[in-house]
Amino acid sequence: VEQKIEQLDQLPKPHDGQVVWLDITGLADAPIIEAIGKTYSLHPLALEDVLHVHQRAKVDEYGNVLFVVARMLYDDRPLDSEQVSLFLAKNMVITFQEDPGDCFDIVRERIRQGGRICARGPDYLVYALIDAIIDAYFPRLESLGTDLDDIDAQITASRGRHSLSRLHEIRRILIFLRKLLWQHRDALNVLVRQENELIAPDTHVYLRDCLDHVVQLLDVAETDRDSCIGLQELALAEIGQRTNDVMRVLTLITTVFMPLTLIAGIYGMNFDPNSSPLNMPELRWFFGYPFALSLMSILAVIMLGFFWARGWFHR
Amino acid sequence: VEQKIEQLDQLPKPHDGQVVWLDITGLADAPIIEAIGKTYSLHPLALEDVLHVHQRAKVDEYGNVLFVVARMLYDDRPLDSEQVSLFLAKNMVITFQEDPGDCFDIVRERIRQGGRICARGPDYLVYALIDAIIDAYFPRLESLGTDLDDIDAQITASRGRHSLSRLHEIRRILIFLRKLLWQHRDALNVLVRQENELIAPDTHVYLRDCLDHVVQLLDVAETDRDSCIGLQELALAEIGQRTNDVMRVLTLITTVFMPLTLIAGIYGMNFDPNSSPLNMPELRWFFGYPFALSLMSILAVIMLGFFWARGWFHR
Amino acid sequence: VEQKIEQLDQLPKPHDGQVVWLDITGLADAPIIEAIGKTYSLHPLALEDVLHVHQRAKVDEYGNVLFVVARMLYDDRPLDSEQVSLFLAKNMVITFQEDPGDCFDIVRERIRQGGRICARGPDYLVYALIDAIIDAYFPRLESLGTDLDDIDAQITASRGRHSLSRLHEIRRILIFLRKLLWQHRDALNVLVRQENELIAPDTHVYLRDCLDHVVQLLDVAETDRDSCIGLQELALAEIGQRTNDVMRVLTLITTVFMPLTLIAGIYGMNFDPNSSPLNMPELRWFFGYPFALSLMSILAVIMLGFFWARGWFHR
Amino acid sequence: VEQKIEQLDQLPKPHDGQVVWLDITGLADAPIIEAIGKTYSLHPLALEDVLHVHQRAKVDEYGNVLFVVARMLYDDRPLDSEQVSLFLAKNMVITFQEDPGDCFDIVRERIRQGGRICARGPDYLVYALIDAIIDAYFPRLESLGTDLDDIDAQITASRGRHSLSRLHEIRRILIFLRKLLWQHRDALNVLVRQENELIAPDTHVYLRDCLDHVVQLLDVAETDRDSCIGLQELALAEIGQRTNDVMRVLTLITTVFMPLTLIAGIYGMNFDPNSSPLNMPELRWFFGYPFALSLMSILAVIMLGFFWARGWFHR
Amino acid sequence: VEQKIEQLDQLPKPHDGQVVWLDITGLADAPIIEAIGKTYSLHPLALEDVLHVHQRAKVDEYGNVLFVVARMLYDDRPLDSEQVSLFLAKNMVITFQEDPGDCFDIVRERIRQGGRICARGPDYLVYALIDAIIDAYFPRLESLGTDLDDIDAQITASRGRHSLSRLHEIRRILIFLRKLLWQHRDALNVLVRQENELIAPDTHVYLRDCLDHVVQLLDVAETDRDSCIGLQELALAEIGQRTNDVMRVLTLITTVFMPLTLIAGIYGMNFDPNSSPLNMPELRWFFGYPFALSLMSILAVIMLGFFWARGWFHR
Repeated sequence: VEQKIEQLDQLPKPHDGQVVWLDITGLADAPIIEAIGKTYSLHPLALEDVLHVHQRAKVDEYGNVLFVVARMLYDDRPLDSEQVSLFLAKNMVITFQEDPGDCFDIVRERIRQGGRICARGPDYLVYALIDAIIDAYFPRLESLGTDLDDIDAQITASRGRHSLSRLHEIRRILIFLRKLLWQHRDALNVLVRQENELIAPDTHVYLRDCLDHVVQLLDVAETDRDSCIGLQELALAEIGQRTNDVMRVLTLITTVFMPLTLIAGIYGMNFDPNSSPLNMPELRWFFGYPFALSLMSILAVIMLGFFWARGWFHR
Repeated sequence: VEQKIEQLDQLPKPHDGQVVWLDITGLADAPIIEAIGKTYSLHPLALEDVLHVHQRAKVDEYGNVLFVVARMLYDDRPLDSEQVSLFLAKNMVITFQEDPGDCFDIVRERIRQGGRICARGPDYLVYALIDAIIDAYFPRLESLGTDLDDIDAQITASRGRHSLSRLHEIRRILIFLRKLLWQHRDALNVLVRQENELIAPDTHVYLRDCLDHVVQLLDVAETDRDSCIGLQELALAEIGQRTNDVMRVLTLITTVFMPLTLIAGIYGMNFDPNSSPLNMPELRWFFGYPFALSLMSILAVIMLGFFWARGWFHR
Repeated sequence: VEQKIEQLDQLPKPHDGQVVWLDITGLADAPIIEAIGKTYSLHPLALEDVLHVHQRAKVDEYGNVLFVVARMLYDDRPLDSEQVSLFLAKNMVITFQEDPGDCFDIVRERIRQGGRICARGPDYLVYALIDAIIDAYFPRLESLGTDLDDIDAQITASRGRHSLSRLHEIRRILIFLRKLLWQHRDALNVLVRQENELIAPDTHVYLRDCLDHVVQLLDVAETDRDSCIGLQELALAEIGQRTNDVMRVLTLITTVFMPLTLIAGIYGMNFDPNSSPLNMPELRWFFGYPFALSLMSILAVIMLGFFWARGWFHR
Repeated sequence: VEQKIEQLDQLPKPHDGQVVWLDITGLADAPIIEAIGKTYSLHPLALEDVLHVHQRAKVDEYGNVLFVVARMLYDDRPLDSEQVSLFLAKNMVITFQEDPGDCFDIVRERIRQGGRICARGPDYLVYALIDAIIDAYFPRLESLGTDLDDIDAQITASRGRHSLSRLHEIRRILIFLRKLLWQHRDALNVLVRQENELIAPDTHVYLRDCLDHVVQLLDVAETDRDSCIGLQELALAEIGQRTNDVMRVLTLITTVFMPLTLIAGIYGMNFDPNSSPLNMPELRWFFGYPFALSLMSILAVIMLGFFWARGWFHR
Repeated sequence: VEQKIEQLDQLPKPHDGQVVWLDITGLADAPIIEAIGKTYSLHPLALEDVLHVHQRAKVDEYGNVLFVVARMLYDDRPLDSEQVSLFLAKNMVITFQEDPGDCFDIVRERIRQGGRICARGPDYLVYALIDAIIDAYFPRLESLGTDLDDIDAQITASRGRHSLSRLHEIRRILIFLRKLLWQHRDALNVLVRQENELIAPDTHVYLRDCLDHVVQLLDVAETDRDSCIGLQELALAEIGQRTNDVMRVLTLITTVFMPLTLIAGIYGMNFDPNSSPLNMPELRWFFGYPFALSLMSILAVIMLGFFWARGWFHR
């Protein structure tokens, strides 16, 4: 049975043999949250955590209620995440989330179609919800991995001008995701090891599977972070290499033209050939001008040959 | 009952069913501290730690007294912290601090208003005090996070001239805060695990919540530190990139003007056209000067085209 | 007995005293996999892991079936690996792999020849298969090590232009292999410590030996990664050193030629010697031109001597 | 009772109710050390460690003798430390040190004045000695911290030419001190956890206090090391930034003067205005020279304006 | 009794009250090794490890035989090590090594002289052999430390041109040694903790001492590695600093000479003073030439003064 509740006195009571899932969206109205908390006797510290939406993913046990905080990715804010607070009590699951829109539609659909999820207890529902949250991390990490591959190709092709700030951004997102995943890993570890009547023994297998997914995601995030660091270093080296290349061009040009300019300058000196036969007799030679031009050409060829021999033209 | 005590013989005695909080400010007068210590039979090593105000945050157990050191942030000294020494004895809490002004006003207010804090024992009061100290870390880390975001924007906009030393400063503060938080984490861990008659079982839930806050703060501090390192690397890369850009401008200018200057220099040579028809006949051509200028222009265009083709004008 | 099975109803039933190894290649046809799973009552979560071929290497226990995921290297894709899923049940081993072609031929050959492998149970077969997968890592790491040695020689000989992107590539592969090896290490640790009737006590010695191999491979991968990082830093330093060398050449040339060009320029000024005896009398000296050339030569020698004294010619 | 012993047969025998502290300085004469060892039945391996003075700080238990190695800082050798070997036996403490001069004078004074130290057993004496050694680390770390602050100020003021090698030196010292402190931490941990009749239960509180000091020192050393690394990076960035600044000056000068020099060169060409009215008619204009100078000035202003607009003059 | 054995049937049988040490050099002849293994019933997997000489240092237990792999340094190959395989059985020690020449001569000598080593069991012999292997690491690390100190002095004296590749080499060796030492540490830890009838309780003290040596070596290796990294960074910074210095020289020269060259160029322009009194009247001034030279000198002095004021001449 699926229904929308808008007044506090419509809140359902859990019965034996029936699982109630109460999904509350929007946390702006604190008194209502507190009223709900009172109705189902949730611990005030847990309710405080529900309202302060920057909790880490975690599992807390308050008497016979299990309080799980999970963090759901936003589609459009790569460095932010939405807190989902789950209470698992006898025959009852309560979830709190801040914004409308979540990744639970797949779970709702499965409930409507009445599959395995209906036959099992509230612990399996909690597993299904956490699993849905975790599964939403996969596409995010995949898209980051694709970005990294693109940047790798760009840097290798020496076209990575803006890649450094993009790499910095991706690295921040990866650190952010890694932090979230570690929190979920710890929380799921607590759930898997929990010896509690609230969680049936055969749900443990499913929780372990979910934990496996988180560990796999962590693996990807770590590897991507390593790639990211490697690419940053490669990009930095590329900048250093390009500076080196630019310097070579400059040095080559300077070294070739400076002597030529000096020769031109020398023959531009105004020594008076009339005062002495030693004063620039070349200026009156028959082949004076061709001689000067040849001298320049030969010097240029020698210089270029010298740099060629030192390997400056091989990239 | 709230009272100000200025003489040693006014020191209250704790009675059953009543919690005494003795808050001592100023540690300059060692004999008085020792007298207080004797009155309430505090261990001399603990008193020594009270007086040497560079202790790490920690929890020590001396017989039936629990000695907790916490470190409170100063508003105006980012790399310093004030030591708060707390003694938890039966029916009694004693706190020592060096300077007037603290973050306990919120606790005092709650006591005056007589809330949950009055109904519970001294262990809850100790929790409330530690919680107040820890909560004061949040705004500090938030302001650092905002600073980092500003610097990120500046570097991305290539305007980060002074950002490196600021980043270095923030990193030092983050390392400092992280160290403090680790100490509090260890101390709270000891308190949470303490199986001691001084701490009532239901206070453990609150201490665990406080520990959660510390872990959350640690998370933020770690992430900020990672950001800081990333930004430092980005700023360094930016410097390298700018050096590269400056080099390109230099190389471009040099490469374009050197050949032109050489041509001008060649036509400035003083070879005597009278001595030989081979000696610079251009100087007497009708279109000699326009020819030289055109040669220069064409050379300049070719050079610029060459660099354009190599992509030096695309940033 | 060895046979190829192409229809579901030919699936063999395991008998006592006989070990059946069912090796399934190709996972495209999910219903068939599910049918096989049903026939041998494999857990649905395990079957899901068989079909999602990006599982980490791991060991899961489902009742009296042990589910092992191992990852086999591809010959031609250095950053990809093929998932091999092994089920160890009583008298039965089932393996699933995605692509034809594997490293199990050596095991098949040993079975055909009927050696120790036939005399022992399915646990020994599982060991032999995992061992074959692990052994295939050795040549991969060896070839990477050889590559690193080559690059080391190149960089030392200052010819390492393209080595940085190659080093980045090798580092990525090493990180990838290291990740895989850590997974296998964890999985083998679980197998070695497993106290399970499925694994005979004397197979533990063999599994421990296989674990030893993985640890040895990890050692190599770690050392190679350290080498890789060291070489990257060396290559970077080499770039910096080369930039420094290029700068020296440029500075030398500039410093030597600029004063000479200035002298030539000065003697090219058009001051009128007729207007005053102070106006460039050198131009009419008998040894004016030789004097100017000597001045230039002496200046050049002094400059070169100065740089020689500062050690710029010693590399 | 205090006495100087110079012959082996004067060696005191420990009695009940009296603590003997035998302090041996100088290890050059191995046979004497061995004779002492035989007298008090010390284990040969421990004696070997006494003579090989490069042992790590550690605690070894040989039957009913506790052997502690501690390392004392030298005043004048920042990267060296002196080994102090302590034997704690029933009613007896033996210390061996290599060089005369130590940090035990404070302990000797307390013994002479007969304080708490005389009333307690040999375990308290061992604590007092170790505490004296540890306390001598504080001023060393404080002076390094002051040095780091100085360098920080220098680098921020861009005057850090020689700071890099000094930072390298400080970092080495910090690594050295950190290593020593870790060893003492491990050793003290062993002592604190020791459940041994040699160490009275109430001495444990004092040893724990001493351990606290070591942990505090470690904290400082770690923080200083982080500062050191941060400062090295800052100094490196400063070098990069300065190179960038120098390049800008060079590029600016080159860019401004090259075109002017070209113009001067052009008007220095020897085209014959008599041969054609197109050949440099400017040379005979009435305002030719002022025109050329104005052209140069305007060009220079445009260039400077261009760089000003690109922000090269803002530091 | 010492004897050389060259035929398989001469292999001794161990008796009670007598320890046999069988030292086998050369592993080329696999069948002989296998025959020996059969004679003393050594496990086939252990024999395989004997033949594959790239095992990590480790301790394996095969029934009542303890199999220890240790790795001995080569004198001449810094990045290679020789495998020594030790079997410890009742009354018997078997060692296998690949190449002739080892560090066991000191043990052999002690046996011949008949010391403590003869009075004790085979476990003490194994200890003595391992200790001999470990002790051979000390001189290696000491020589590397000396090399590092030399390089440190060279870099500080700015003469560290080739130090970077040497540092890279030393770092590789240190990583290699560290890896070996960690393996031995693990292996010795296993031996020390082994509660096995093969190892007598009082041999544990000796093994612990040997473990202490390994930990001490590890300490040295770690510190040296830190030094190495620090020196590499220092050398890199030195390169950056030198590039900066070279750039300053270049910029200084350019900035001083460019304006002078421009002035010379201006007075080299061919404006016709006859056409207009505005056209370069300086050329006909009485003090024209001295005026131009003074202008140049003053400009040069101003430029140099400007750079001096900015601190470019202070190193």
